[in-house]
Amino acid sequence: MSKKDDLQADSAMHVMDGIYAGHDGMKETPRKRFMKKKKTVNISNLAEEIAKGSRLHLARGITLLESITREDREAGQRLLLNLLPKTGNSIRLGITGVPGAGTSTFIETFGLKLAEAGHKVAVLAIDPSSTVTGGSILGDKTRMEILARHPNAFIRPSPSAGTLGGVHKKSRETMLLCEAAGYDIILIETVGVGQSETMVRGMVDMFILLALTGAGDELQGMKKGIMELADMIIVHKADGENLPLAKKTVREYKQLLHLLQPASPGWMGKSLPVSSYERTGFDEVWGLVKSFKEAMEKNGHWQTRRNYQTKDWFHAMIQNHLIDSFYSKKGKLDEVKKLEYAVVNGQMTVASAVEALFKE
Amino acid sequence: MSKKDDLQADSAMHVMDGIYAGHDGMKETPRKRFMKKKKTVNISNLAEEIAKGSRLHLARGITLLESITREDREAGQRLLLNLLPKTGNSIRLGITGVPGAGTSTFIETFGLKLAEAGHKVAVLAIDPSSTVTGGSILGDKTRMEILARHPNAFIRPSPSAGTLGGVHKKSRETMLLCEAAGYDIILIETVGVGQSETMVRGMVDMFILLALTGAGDELQGMKKGIMELADMIIVHKADGENLPLAKKTVREYKQLLHLLQPASPGWMGKSLPVSSYERTGFDEVWGLVKSFKEAMEKNGHWQTRRNYQTKDWFHAMIQNHLIDSFYSKKGKLDEVKKLEYAVVNGQMTVASAVEALFKE
Repeated sequence: MSKKDDLQADSAMHVMDGIYAGHDGMKETPRKRFMKKKKTVNISNLAEEIAKGSRLHLARGITLLESITREDREAGQRLLLNLLPKTGNSIRLGITGVPGAGTSTFIETFGLKLAEAGHKVAVLAIDPSSTVTGGSILGDKTRMEILARHPNAFIRPSPSAGTLGGVHKKSRETMLLCEAAGYDIILIETVGVGQSETMVRGMVDMFILLALTGAGDELQGMKKGIMELADMIIVHKADGENLPLAKKTVREYKQLLHLLQPASPGWMGKSLPVSSYERTGFDEVWGLVKSFKEAMEKNGHWQTRRNYQTKDWFHAMIQNHLIDSFYSKKGKLDEVKKLEYAVVNGQMTVASAVEALFKE
Repeated sequence: MSKKDDLQADSAMHVMDGIYAGHDGMKETPRKRFMKKKKTVNISNLAEEIAKGSRLHLARGITLLESITREDREAGQRLLLNLLPKTGNSIRLGITGVPGAGTSTFIETFGLKLAEAGHKVAVLAIDPSSTVTGGSILGDKTRMEILARHPNAFIRPSPSAGTLGGVHKKSRETMLLCEAAGYDIILIETVGVGQSETMVRGMVDMFILLALTGAGDELQGMKKGIMELADMIIVHKADGENLPLAKKTVREYKQLLHLLQPASPGWMGKSLPVSSYERTGFDEVWGLVKSFKEAMEKNGHWQTRRNYQTKDWFHAMIQNHLIDSFYSKKGKLDEVKKLEYAVVNGQMTVASAVEALFKE
C-alpha cells in the first residue's frame, strides 16, 4: 500500500466515524475498531446520509449489499428495507448496443447532457463475466471519466464474478439504493454476450438498443431477438459522411419495428439517428423517454411492469436459495458424486439419476 | 386432414407395426390401437431399429424424449438407457454466426460435403424461442432442403417452446440418439440471441464461430465474449470482391486469437476464409476439425471435457427438479403469493421475503 492509499483509507475511516458504532460506544477510533474487525454498522445513520445524497455513503451501502460476509449482507438488507419507501422515483433505462455501436460513449454523452440539465444520473453496468477467464470483458477504470467527475453523476462498475443471477440481484439492489439517494435517472448498460439483455429488460422501464448503419437485409436471429425487447432503436454514429446512410437505416428500422409486436403495450418502437461526436439527437432521445413514461403511466403499464419485475426477481431469488441449500445438505454432495460417476460412465441416463436422487 | 395426409399417416402407422405392441398382442392393427390411445412402446424393438439407422424410428424416439406426457418420457428414458452404450462415437460441432454470417448456408454446404464423403451427418438447431412472442425466430420449414434430402443426413428442427434448460436437455438427449443411430458428425446450430452460445459450448467438442469481413477495430464485448468460446473462426462469404478483405480479416482474427486464452487447452484458435457460394475452404475446415480431435485426444481433454459436460448437465437437471417440486408443494404457492404481495408493496425486501419463506 502506498503512502497515498494509506492516507485515503484513513480519511475514509474518519468519514465513517458517524456510520460505525463499536460495541463499546465511541471511545475507539474507527480505524482501531476496523482493525479489530468488530464493526457494527449504524444503519439508520447510513440510510440518512444516503438519503441526503452522499455519494461516499451510497458507495458504502452498495458495498454492504455486495459483501461476501453474512453480517454485512444482513446489514445491507436492513439498510435497503429502511430506504425502500424512498425508492422507485426514477426512470430506469436499459441500454445495449450491437458490437462497435459505441454504447459507453453514448451513455457518457447522454448522461452529461442530463446531469448538466440538473438531473441526477446513476450509471450501472451489467457485465456477465467472461466465461473462460472469469475476468471482466471491459476494463472499467478508464470508462466515462468525464461523466464520473460530474457532481450529479454516480457511476458504479459491474459487480465482479458470481453467477448471472447474483449479478442481477446486486444490480437491482444497487439501483434501489441509487433511487433512495435521489438519482432520478438510472442508466443500466449491458456489456457483453446476449445473456444479459433479457435480464436487463427485466429490471428497467424502457429498453434502448444502439445500432449502426447498414442493418438492411442482413437482419438475422440475433438482431431480431434483441429488437423485440427494444422500445427505441438508436442509429448511432450518425454524423459526417455516415449521416445519409444512418437516416436510411432509421427508416428501415422503423419499418421493421412496425412489423414486430411492441416490447411495451401501447408503444410503437421508435428509431432515430444520434451522434455522440456531434452531440446531436439527444434532445429527441430524452423527449421520447418522457413520452414513453407518459404513455405507460397513462395505460397503467408503468407500475404493472415494475410489479411484475419485482415478482420475477423474488422468484429468481427463491430458486437461488433452493439450489444453494440442496447442495449444502449433509451427505448430499457424496450422494450426488456417486450418481455423477454412474452417469459419466454410461450406467445411468441423466434423467434416471435425477430421479434416483429424489426418490426418498 | 387431406386425403394425402391421411394416407401418409396410415403408412406411418404400418411402419410402426413392429414398434408398438398392444395389450392384447398383435390382433389389432396399429391404427385401431392408436385410436384407442392404449399404445405401449416396444422399446427394444425401437432401439434396434434406431441402431440399424432408420431415420423414421430415430424421429419417433426423439418425439418420445420430447413428449409432454410422463408415460412417453419414461419410455424415452428406457430407450436412451438401452442405447447409451452405442453413443459417444461422433464429433460434436457447435456452430454459431454473427448476424448476417449465413450460418444455415454454411451448415448446409458443409453437411453436404461430409455426407457426400460418406459421413452420416445430423443437424440439430438450438433456438431459444423469442422472448416476447414465444415463437420461433426462424421458420424451420424452408431451411436446408437439399441437405435434408440426402440419405446420409438427418435434420431435426429445434424443440419449440419451453425453458432454455428444457431445450438444452432435449437437444442433448437427441444428440445421443443420433449417435446411437450411427451419425458420426453432429452439427449443432445456434439460432438467435447469445444465451444459447454458452449452452451449446457446454454440449459440443468443438465450437466454430462464423464471422464476416471488417471485424477490425470495431471489436467489442459481444464478439470478444463469443470469440473466447471459439476453437475456430471462419470468415464466411470470402468470395469475389470480398476475398482480399476476408483474408485481411482472417489475419486480424488470428492476431486476436493469439491474445486470448484458448477455448480448449492446448489448441490455439484458428481462423480461415470460407465461401459457401464457391464451395471453397471446406476441406481446410474439415482438416482442422480432425486436427483438433487428434490434439484433444492426445492431451486427454476430449474425454475430460465430455465428462465435465455430462456432470454439468446432471446438475442443471437437479436444479430444474428442485424448482419444479418446490412450487408444486401443497400450500406453497399461497405462501409465496402472500410474500410476493408484501414485496411488491414495499413492505419487505426481496431478500427478507426469501428468508421468511425458508425459515421453518
